[in-house]
Amino acid sequence: MKVQRQIPQNAYHADDSFLGRYQKLIKQEVIPYQYQVLCDQAEGAEKSHVVANFINAGKALRGENPGDGFYGMVFQDSDAAKWLEAVAYSLTIFPDQELETTADQLIELIAQAQDTDGYLNTRFTIKDRDKRWTNLLEGHELYCAGHMMEAACAYYEATGKDRLLKVMQKNAEHIYHIFIEEKKEGYPGHPEVELALMRMYHLTGDRHCLELAEHFLNIRGIDRNFFKNEQKKRNWEVWGMDAGDLYYNQSFAPVREQKDAVGHAVRAVYLYTAMADLASETEDEELQKACRRLWESITRRRMYLTGGIGSTGIGEAFTEDYDLPGDTAYCETCASIGLMFFASRMLEQDVRGEYADVMERAFYNTVLAGMQLDGKRFFYVNPLECIPGISGKAVTHSHDLTERPKWYACACCPPNTARLISSIGKYAYGENGQTAYCHLFAGGEASFENGMKLSCKTSYPYGFTVLYTITAGNGQLAVHIPSWSSQYRILVNGSDAKYTLQDGYVYLSVKENDTVSITLDDTPYTMYASSRVPQLSGYAAVCRGPLVYCFEGADNDQDVLSLSLKRGGSLTAEPFDKDLLNGTVRITAEAVRRETTEELYTSALPAMTPCTAVAIPYYTWCNRGENQMRVWMNEIN
Amino acid sequence: MKVQRQIPQNAYHADDSFLGRYQKLIKQEVIPYQYQVLCDQAEGAEKSHVVANFINAGKALRGENPGDGFYGMVFQDSDAAKWLEAVAYSLTIFPDQELETTADQLIELIAQAQDTDGYLNTRFTIKDRDKRWTNLLEGHELYCAGHMMEAACAYYEATGKDRLLKVMQKNAEHIYHIFIEEKKEGYPGHPEVELALMRMYHLTGDRHCLELAEHFLNIRGIDRNFFKNEQKKRNWEVWGMDAGDLYYNQSFAPVREQKDAVGHAVRAVYLYTAMADLASETEDEELQKACRRLWESITRRRMYLTGGIGSTGIGEAFTEDYDLPGDTAYCETCASIGLMFFASRMLEQDVRGEYADVMERAFYNTVLAGMQLDGKRFFYVNPLECIPGISGKAVTHSHDLTERPKWYACACCPPNTARLISSIGKYAYGENGQTAYCHLFAGGEASFENGMKLSCKTSYPYGFTVLYTITAGNGQLAVHIPSWSSQYRILVNGSDAKYTLQDGYVYLSVKENDTVSITLDDTPYTMYASSRVPQLSGYAAVCRGPLVYCFEGADNDQDVLSLSLKRGGSLTAEPFDKDLLNGTVRITAEAVRRETTEELYTSALPAMTPCTAVAIPYYTWCNRGENQMRVWMNEIN
Repeated sequence: MKVQRQIPQNAYHADDSFLGRYQKLIKQEVIPYQYQVLCDQAEGAEKSHVVANFINAGKALRGENPGDGFYGMVFQDSDAAKWLEAVAYSLTIFPDQELETTADQLIELIAQAQDTDGYLNTRFTIKDRDKRWTNLLEGHELYCAGHMMEAACAYYEATGKDRLLKVMQKNAEHIYHIFIEEKKEGYPGHPEVELALMRMYHLTGDRHCLELAEHFLNIRGIDRNFFKNEQKKRNWEVWGMDAGDLYYNQSFAPVREQKDAVGHAVRAVYLYTAMADLASETEDEELQKACRRLWESITRRRMYLTGGIGSTGIGEAFTEDYDLPGDTAYCETCASIGLMFFASRMLEQDVRGEYADVMERAFYNTVLAGMQLDGKRFFYVNPLECIPGISGKAVTHSHDLTERPKWYACACCPPNTARLISSIGKYAYGENGQTAYCHLFAGGEASFENGMKLSCKTSYPYGFTVLYTITAGNGQLAVHIPSWSSQYRILVNGSDAKYTLQDGYVYLSVKENDTVSITLDDTPYTMYASSRVPQLSGYAAVCRGPLVYCFEGADNDQDVLSLSLKRGGSLTAEPFDKDLLNGTVRITAEAVRRETTEELYTSALPAMTPCTAVAIPYYTWCNRGENQMRVWMNEIN
Repeated sequence: MKVQRQIPQNAYHADDSFLGRYQKLIKQEVIPYQYQVLCDQAEGAEKSHVVANFINAGKALRGENPGDGFYGMVFQDSDAAKWLEAVAYSLTIFPDQELETTADQLIELIAQAQDTDGYLNTRFTIKDRDKRWTNLLEGHELYCAGHMMEAACAYYEATGKDRLLKVMQKNAEHIYHIFIEEKKEGYPGHPEVELALMRMYHLTGDRHCLELAEHFLNIRGIDRNFFKNEQKKRNWEVWGMDAGDLYYNQSFAPVREQKDAVGHAVRAVYLYTAMADLASETEDEELQKACRRLWESITRRRMYLTGGIGSTGIGEAFTEDYDLPGDTAYCETCASIGLMFFASRMLEQDVRGEYADVMERAFYNTVLAGMQLDGKRFFYVNPLECIPGISGKAVTHSHDLTERPKWYACACCPPNTARLISSIGKYAYGENGQTAYCHLFAGGEASFENGMKLSCKTSYPYGFTVLYTITAGNGQLAVHIPSWSSQYRILVNGSDAKYTLQDGYVYLSVKENDTVSITLDDTPYTMYASSRVPQLSGYAAVCRGPLVYCFEGADNDQDVLSLSLKRGGSLTAEPFDKDLLNGTVRITAEAVRRETTEELYTSALPAMTPCTAVAIPYYTWCNRGENQMRVWMNEIN
C-alpha cells in the first residue's frame, strides 16, 4: 500500500516562477525543436528519421514499399514516445490545438505502424520481422514499448484521447501473450517496460500489466545464462554487447538479492523505480528492503553532489563505492531523471525527507544542467569539472564534452528532460486521503483528490520563502524541509505555527484561506565529501539552497585551477541579477590564487594571493562558451 | 657527432652500495627466476613457453614435428632476448660459468631457430611462414629482432662470444635485403629495431645497420596509409589493432615533424631514443630539434613526478598536456626505462643536467617501484595512488593493481628492469676524450678510454656525500649536480674546489690520487605541480634527494585519504633503518587528519586533528601487503 502517491499531471499548474518558466521553455523551444529533429528538419542536428521510421513501418505493414527504410538506433522509436509524453504534459499546462493536432497525427502514424497482433516497433517491422523477440539483450523492443506506454498514459490523461492508449493496451496484451501465455523466456536488456507497465496498471487497472511487470522483475537474474543462451541462438547482433556482463544490465542476481547499485546507471534506476512501485503496490517487504538497500548504495556511496550517478563512461556505469571522479564523471542526464523516478516511488513507500532531498539535488543540478539555458542544446554527460584541452579530448575524457551539442545520434536525454520538466508537478506534490504533500517547492496551483486546493508562491530556488495559501478544502499539509536548511521558520496566518516534524517533513492542519509561510535558510554554505572519496579529500563545494555552485573561467580570469577557497572563509550571495544567465545569484568566496609556474614541478612554495572567487549555479555552466569549470575546489586555510 | 657517449658495460663495476645490491638482487633472484619462467618451471607464474618456442622453431626448420608448437604473445621471443641481455650485463659484474653455459645453450637454440635466409622469429617459423613481413602493424617481427640484436651486442661485449652476434648480423642483413634491396614498403608497428640497429652499428661499424635504422626512421609517417593498406592486403590479424590509429604508434607524421609525445608510451620513447642516437651520430639538426621538442613535450607537460609516463591504460598511452591523474595512471615500468634510454641518448647530443635529472627521477622511482624489494614480483603499471576497493577493481582502474603479480602474460617489464639495472653503469658514466662524465651517482669503479679510472664511494640515495677518488690517469671530471640539490659543497683533496658549473654539471680538472667530495642537500623537500595540472591543484609531494616519497596505509593507521600535509610544515628524515623495507629512511611530516564522516556529503566543517604523517620512498611501496598509497597529498595551512 502506498503511503501517498503522485498527484495526476493535470492537478498542478505552474505559475510564471522558476519552474513555470522552465515549462514554458520546454513548450516554446524544446518541443518544437525536437519535433523538427524527429522530422529531420532541424539544421545542424544529427539525423533522426523517427517520424519517417513510423511512416515506413506503416507502409511495410500495408505491403507497400517501405521508402527509405529504417534509420537510427535500435531504440529510435523511444524518441517519439518521449516527445509525445512531453507534449501530453505540456498540453495540460499550455493548451495548444495545433500542437495537439500534430501529436494526434504522429499517434496515427504510430497506430498504423502497429502489427495486427499488437506488435509495435519500426526497427523490426520495416525489416527483420523474423528477428522479433530474439535479442532481448540489445533489441530494445520492450524498452521502446515501455516508453510508448508511458506516452499513451500521459496523452490519455492530458487529452482524454485513447487512440494511443488502446494501441499500447493491445501491445501490452501482445507482450503478455508472448511472455506469459506462450511462456517465452527472458527479460529486457534495458529495464523500462516494467515501470511503464506499472503506470498502465495504475491508469487502467489492467491486472495483466501488473502481472507482466511483476513477471519481468521476478525472473530477472534467476537464469544467469539467459542472455548468453539467447546470443547462441541467433546469428546477428546490434552492437555485439557482452552477454556475459551480467552487472551491466543488473541481471547478476535476482532483484530481491541485489545489494550494490551496479552497471549502466540508467538501466539501474529504471529497474529500481519499477521495483519500488511494485513493492509498495503489493506490500512486498523483501522487495522494499532491496529497494532501500539499493537506494542507500546509490545515495550514500555512489552519488555525486550534483545528484549525478555513473562514475564512468565505460558502460555509462556505476563503478565502486566512493569512486567519484569529477572530470571523468558520466552523470548522464537520463540517469538523474531516473534517480528522480526512483526517489518519487520510494516516497510512495515511506515519506522521508532524504528521498525528496535527492529529487531536488538531481533536478536543480544535473537535470537542469543537461539543457542549455535557451533550451537549444543538451548535455548527455554532466561532469563536475571541465578543463578545455583535456575534457572532450583525452581518451579518458572523450565523453566529457566542453560544449552542449544540438542533438545526439543517441538522443535519449533531451526528450527525457522535456518530459521530466513538463511533469514536475507529479514529483513536487503527493496525496493520501486528508494529507497533501509538498515534496518540492513548485510555484502555482495544486489540487488534491480530497478537495484541497492550494496556491504556492515562491521565487525558489533564488527566494527562500514559500507561501502556501489554502484556496479550498481543509486537511493536513505536509511540507518537506530540505536537509540543507538547518534553520527555518513557519508561520500560519502570520503567526508561529504549531506543527509536527517527522522524517524531514512538517505536518500542519490547515483549512481554507489559511496561509502557510515557510522561510528557509538562504545562507550560502560549503559542502565536504567524506574522506573516503579519494578524489575529494581536501576539497570543498559551495552551495546555496538546493543549488550546487561551480566556478567557471568566465568569472575567474579564465583560470579556476589555481584557485583555492579559504577554509571557513566568507561566502556572499550577490543580489539576484535578472540579466545574468537567465537570472541568477552569484556567490563570491574568499579565496587565494596560487602562482602558476611554467615548470611542471617545482620545490618552491607557490605564492598565494588573496582574491575573490566567483561562483555560479552548476546548472548554468557552459552558457558562455567553452571555458574551465570546477565544482569541487581545493581548500586552504 | 656525440659530445660524449656511454661507457661500455664492462667499464663499470659496482660496489656493494645501493646500486650494487640491486645488481646482486637481479643476479641472485631475478635472472634465475626469469629463466625458470622462460622454461615454464616457475610455479604460480603465467605460462611463458619462450624456450620451448625456440626449440620448436628449430625442429620446424629441420623438418621435424614442432612439438607443442608456438605459445604466447607474438613478441614472446623478446623475453628471451631481454633475459639474455640482462645475463650478459650481469656476467660482466658477477662472472658465473654455469649461468654463461645456460645462456650459451639458449643462444644455440636461438641460432638453430634461424632460417637459412637469416630470418629469426619463432612465431612465424613454427607456423604461418607465409605470413612473414605481412603484418608490420602487429607482428612484432622487427621488434623481436631489435631486442635480439641488443642481446647479441651485449653478450658479445660481455663474453667476447660472437655466436649470437653473428646470428643477428645475418638477421640484420636479411632485414636489409628485404627492406632496402627488395624495397619492401613499411616500418615497424612497434619501434625498437631502430635503436638496436644503431647499437649494432656502434659495435660493428656495419653501415648497413646505420642505413637501415635511418631508413625506418625516415619513412615513418611519410605514407600515412601504409598500415591501412597493409591490413587490406592480408586476411589475418593478431589483435585486430586499428590500422588507422596513427597516433598510437607515432606514424601520424614524419618523425622530424612530430611535436607532441603521443600514443603508446613505450613505442614513443623507443622511437625517440633511436632518433636521438641517429641525430647525434649523423649531426642531423632537424632530427635533433625534433628530439628536443619531443623531450620537452614529455618532461615539461606529460611526465609524472615519479618519472612515469603514460597517463592512461587505454592504449598504454600519453593523453594531453597536463593530464596527470595519479590513481588511473599507467606509468608502465618499460616506459620509464625507455625514457632513461632517451635521456641517455639526449645526453650524448648535449650535456645538460635535465637529462640526467630525468634519468635519475625515472630510475629511483618508477623503475625501482616496478619490482618488489625481494625481486620476486613485478608491477607493469605504477600509479601514484592506490586505493584498495577502487584500484584494480573499478573498470577505470582495472590496470592499477594493488599488489605486484609474479609474472605477466605480456611480460615485457620484468626482464626490461633486469637488463636496465644490470647495465646502470652505461647510464651513470660517459666519456669523451679527456673528460669523464658522472651522470648518476653510482658507487664502484669506473674506467675510461682516456686512461682515467675512478672509484666512487657513496651510500646514495640515502647518503648525500659522494666521494670520487681518481685511481689512475688525469683529465677532466664532469659531475652532474641534481637539480633538486639547491645547495652543495665540493671539496678537492679536502679543500674547497675550483670548478666551473655549466648546465647542471660541475667540471673539475683532476689527476691521479685526487679525491673529489660532493655533498648534496639531504633536506627533505616538498614538490608542487603547476596549477595547469588539474588533478594536482592544492597537492604537495614529499621528496628527499632523488626519491619521491609516498604515504602508505601501513604507516598511517590504514587511512591516508583523510591526511593533509601542513603547508610549509616540518619534514623530518628519520635515521636510516636497515631493517625497514631493505633499508630505508622514513620521513615524518607535520599533518592533520580530517574527521571521516559516515555521510557521503556534509556541510559541517570536518574537524582536523594535528598529527604526524609518515612517508616512505615510493619505490618501496606495496611491500607490506595491499594497502592505501598516495604520493600527492592535499595540503592545508
